Amino acid sequence: MKNEKNGKSMGEMGEFGFIGKIRQALKARSPVVLGVGDDAAILKPTPAHEMVLTTDMLVEGRHFDFKTITPWQLGAKTMAVNVSDCAAMGAKPLAALVSLGVPKDFPVADLEAFYDGLRQWGEAYGAQIAGGDTVGSDKFVVNVALVGEVEAGRALKRGGALAGDALFVTGTLGDSAAGLDALQRSSGKGEEAAGLLVKRHLTPTPRFTVGRALVTGKLSGCAIDISDGLSSEIHHLCEESGVGAEIHEEAIPYSPALIHYCDANHLDPLKFALEGGEDYELLFTIPLSKIAGAVQKLPKETGVAVKSIGRILPKAKGISLITLKGERVPLKARGYDHFSGNQ
Amino acid sequence: MKNEKNGKSMGEMGEFGFIGKIRQALKARSPVVLGVGDDAAILKPTPAHEMVLTTDMLVEGRHFDFKTITPWQLGAKTMAVNVSDCAAMGAKPLAALVSLGVPKDFPVADLEAFYDGLRQWGEAYGAQIAGGDTVGSDKFVVNVALVGEVEAGRALKRGGALAGDALFVTGTLGDSAAGLDALQRSSGKGEEAAGLLVKRHLTPTPRFTVGRALVTGKLSGCAIDISDGLSSEIHHLCEESGVGAEIHEEAIPYSPALIHYCDANHLDPLKFALEGGEDYELLFTIPLSKIAGAVQKLPKETGVAVKSIGRILPKAKGISLITLKGERVPLKARGYDHFSGNQ
Repeated sequence: MKNEKNGKSMGEMGEFGFIGKIRQALKARSPVVLGVGDDAAILKPTPAHEMVLTTDMLVEGRHFDFKTITPWQLGAKTMAVNVSDCAAMGAKPLAALVSLGVPKDFPVADLEAFYDGLRQWGEAYGAQIAGGDTVGSDKFVVNVALVGEVEAGRALKRGGALAGDALFVTGTLGDSAAGLDALQRSSGKGEEAAGLLVKRHLTPTPRFTVGRALVTGKLSGCAIDISDGLSSEIHHLCEESGVGAEIHEEAIPYSPALIHYCDANHLDPLKFALEGGEDYELLFTIPLSKIAGAVQKLPKETGVAVKSIGRILPKAKGISLITLKGERVPLKARGYDHFSGNQ
Repeated sequence: MKNEKNGKSMGEMGEFGFIGKIRQALKARSPVVLGVGDDAAILKPTPAHEMVLTTDMLVEGRHFDFKTITPWQLGAKTMAVNVSDCAAMGAKPLAALVSLGVPKDFPVADLEAFYDGLRQWGEAYGAQIAGGDTVGSDKFVVNVALVGEVEAGRALKRGGALAGDALFVTGTLGDSAAGLDALQRSSGKGEEAAGLLVKRHLTPTPRFTVGRALVTGKLSGCAIDISDGLSSEIHHLCEESGVGAEIHEEAIPYSPALIHYCDANHLDPLKFALEGGEDYELLFTIPLSKIAGAVQKLPKETGVAVKSIGRILPKAKGISLITLKGERVPLKARGYDHFSGNQ
C-alpha cells in the first residue's frame, strides 16, 4: 500500500500541512472546550464524576499488518480497543489524544482514511479526537489515550469481585483469535465462517453499553475487558480481588462461526477462547442477589447477550476449569505476552 | 547499549513481569484514585477546574539516539516535553499515561532507569504515572499522555493575543539546538560551552512555574511553548490569535554558553534561536497595563528570567523581525517539520 502512487505522501505534505487538513474535521464540541491546534486540549468535567484514563499502542508488524487490515479498519480498531478499556470501567468515553508515527512515504489519503475510522468509531461511542502528535517513524505506530468519565465512586474495578459472585461474559469468545488464525492459515476450509471471524478480529465491538448498564443499574462493581484471552483475564481479576474462581467449560459462549471454522479445520474452540486475544468482550461479576434482574435487564437494555460462565471462590480454592467431563483442572494464565513467543 | 549483558532483557522478563516489577514504585496518590493495574486509571478532578490533555511521541532514531542520551535522561526529557505543554496552558500536571514500544533485547535495567527518569521528573512537577501500555517494537518508541488541570476559563491559549500586547519569552533561546549541533559536530571547539548546551538539549526544564504564575496572577491569557523554534511558534500564535507581530533581534535572550559556542565555531546564534527546536521555553503575551507588575513579579515568584522581545501588531502588519541594523524584514516560519528534510 505504501508504494502506491495515490496522491501525496506524508513526506511531501509535512506534519503541519496534515494537521491543518484534518483540523476542520475535528471541531471541538462540549465537553471539549478547546480541541486540536493548541499546546493541549481542554475538557470540562461533569460535576460529581471521576475521569477515567486509558491508553493503547499498536505497532505495525506486531499488532497489525497493512496486508490484512485497511487504514480505515485500523483507525476503527484502535479506537475500539481504547473504548473497550473505558467500557470495562463502566465509563463514558469523551476525548481521545492520537499520537502517530508515520513513515515518510505513507500516502496522505491512507492517513485520512485512518483518521476517518478513528473519528467515526469514536463518535459512535461519544469520544471526539481532541488532540495528538504526529511524528516521523520507520514503521506506522499509533497510540490513543482516551479520557472518559464515570459517576464518582462507581467505576468497575478488577479488584471488586467477592467470593460467591457469579462470573459473566458478554457476547462470544475466541472469534478474534480464530479470525487471526484464518488470516494466517488461509486454508480455504470453512471460508464463510472465516470471513465472519476475520471481521470480528479486524473491527471488534467494544461493550460500552454493558459497562454503562452495570454502573447505572448498580449491578456490579467489577469488570475487565478480555483483550488477552479468558484464562489471562480471570487471573488478573482474581489477583486484584484476592479471590479464586471456577469456570465451566460447557458455559463458555462460542459463535456458530467459530464452531463451524474449528470443525472444518480440526481446531479446538476452547483454545481460542482461553488463550486467544482481542475479543474485547467484558468479563464481570454479579452478586447472587442481583443475578435474576441482571439476566433479564442487560440484554434488553444493551442488545448484547450475556452469559454466566462460573463463579468467584475464596482465594484458597485457586482458579480452575470444570471440563465437559466434570473434571476440575487448574486454569493457567496463557494469554498473549507481547515479549514472549513469536508475536 | 542494547547488546550489553546487564541483567534480563524485556524478552526474558515479559510484559506482565515488568509491569508487576514497576507497579510497586507507582502507588497511586490523590488526586489519582486508581493507578497502574486496572483497565484504566481514575482521577478525581478539582471542582471549578478544567482538564488539560496533551501527548507527545518520541521515536528512536528520529528524536533521540541511545548513543547520546541515557535511558534516565530520555525518561526525564519525555516527561519534561509533556509538562512543557501543560505549562504553556498554565495548568498543573496531574497524571501521565506512558506507552512504550520496546525491543525484545532491551535490558530491563535500562527500562527501569527510563521509568526512574520519567517518575522523578513527573513528581518534580506534580505528575504521577497512572497507567500505560507496554508492547514489543523494533525500535524504542515512547508516548506520554499527560492530564493536568487549570482553573476553569483561565487556560493560556495560543489564540489569546491582542494587538498592543508585549511579547515575552522565558530563559534563553537556541541552547537546545546548539546542543544538538555540538553532539553531531564534535568539533572540540568551545567544549565547555558545548557541555552546557548539550545538557539543555538532553534535559530541558519546562517553565511550569511561569505558566502557573501567569494564570494565578491574571497576567496573561496567551502562551505557547517553544518546541519548534521561535520563528515557527510566533507564526502559530499569530495565526490562532488573528494578529501580526514584530520581534527585535537585539532583545532575543542568548545564554553565555550559546554565544561562546557560536563564536568558537563561527555559527549564528540567531539561527539556533529562530530555527532550532526543543528549547521548551514559553512565548507569551502581557497586556501593556500589566507589564510593570509582571516584570517585577515573575522572576521573583518563579526564579525564571523573562524578557520582552517584541509586541503584537494588527494582522495586516504581518510578522517581522527588526534586525540589529534596525531593518524590518519578514520573519518566515522555518521550524522543525518531522516529515521534511533529513530529520
